[in-house]
Amino acid sequence: MDENVKERLNQLFDFFRLIDREKFIGRQTYLTDATRKENDAEHAWHMAVMTILLAEYSNEKIDVLRTIEMLLIHDLVEIYAGDTYAYDEEGLKTKESRELAAADKLYGGLPEDLGKKLRGLWDEFEAANTPEAKFAHTMDNIQPIMLNDATDGKSWRERGVALHQIMKRNAHTADGSQTLWEYAYDTFIKKNVEEGNIREE
Amino acid sequence: MDENVKERLNQLFDFFRLIDREKFIGRQTYLTDATRKENDAEHAWHMAVMTILLAEYSNEKIDVLRTIEMLLIHDLVEIYAGDTYAYDEEGLKTKESRELAAADKLYGGLPEDLGKKLRGLWDEFEAANTPEAKFAHTMDNIQPIMLNDATDGKSWRERGVALHQIMKRNAHTADGSQTLWEYAYDTFIKKNVEEGNIREE
Repeated sequence: MDENVKERLNQLFDFFRLIDREKFIGRQTYLTDATRKENDAEHAWHMAVMTILLAEYSNEKIDVLRTIEMLLIHDLVEIYAGDTYAYDEEGLKTKESRELAAADKLYGGLPEDLGKKLRGLWDEFEAANTPEAKFAHTMDNIQPIMLNDATDGKSWRERGVALHQIMKRNAHTADGSQTLWEYAYDTFIKKNVEEGNIREE
Repeated sequence: MDENVKERLNQLFDFFRLIDREKFIGRQTYLTDATRKENDAEHAWHMAVMTILLAEYSNEKIDVLRTIEMLLIHDLVEIYAGDTYAYDEEGLKTKESRELAAADKLYGGLPEDLGKKLRGLWDEFEAANTPEAKFAHTMDNIQPIMLNDATDGKSWRERGVALHQIMKRNAHTADGSQTLWEYAYDTFIKKNVEEGNIREE
């Protein structure tokens, strides 16, 4: 095997072993049986499958591959930066700087062309300006809402989450898909407010 | 919201909640820290990311989106059919019929157009005739080899796996990518035979 190819593959497989850690990064969402919480890799997988089946509901036509790529890799920075819970006000203050440093470290270890590609996908997700990034954020917001509803709002109840926090967090969910946001609001959020799983103030 | 759209979304979200079970289906491969074994959702996510970065090594040019879609969904049948370990001779005898019945049940619950799409992807993966399906199988075989090597062959040792079993299992791994098969053989398999983690007979 050509030495350059081998060196490139060594770099890539180092990266693949490194990102295995994504499976150890816990989120605040319970799985449907409520026995344990989801990890980042499971979350990314779930959203990617959802995107295959929901892309038709995007407000604007999207490149499905780029959207899925974005969803698959957007949480990798947490390997170095840690997960920041959506309603952790303190953590959110330092999230951006922690994640920028993490992205440099993470993608800097890849062959230059591929490091650039993944960094570009992550930057695009963070900027949330393209139809693909907007739809990816819609998925990122709706998937946990669906799981929280499936477990009778367990995570919302444990954390005492209020409706205004959810609405703030979802201020741009409709930017990716008006239809999916309406569906999530009507089907999941309203019901859990009525049932007292989401605080109403 | 239009009633037809709502009904379609209800069907889709029923499916998304159902496939959450993918996260509970254990595999025989240990994660890199060897503390626990991987589940199907994590495995699919890992291979999908690997495909983004390794597609250039496919023997034939591949449609990356279709390859990733295939990898993301190909184990869903195990929700109904269970996981069959690669070296479980008894289980392998009934695997095909169990998985065919599972596919009917699983994809029958989706809106017809999307059920057809996912069933088509699964059938394509199983037939392993297209460049995309061949590459997907290369990923499906190499990802656990990489993890097994990363844990000093823990899963191979526990199960007493022999080299001839691995070679049989990997008879077509090079069909998707000659380069990646050579790399995996040289870097992971040979080393673990030498170290006694894979039985040599």
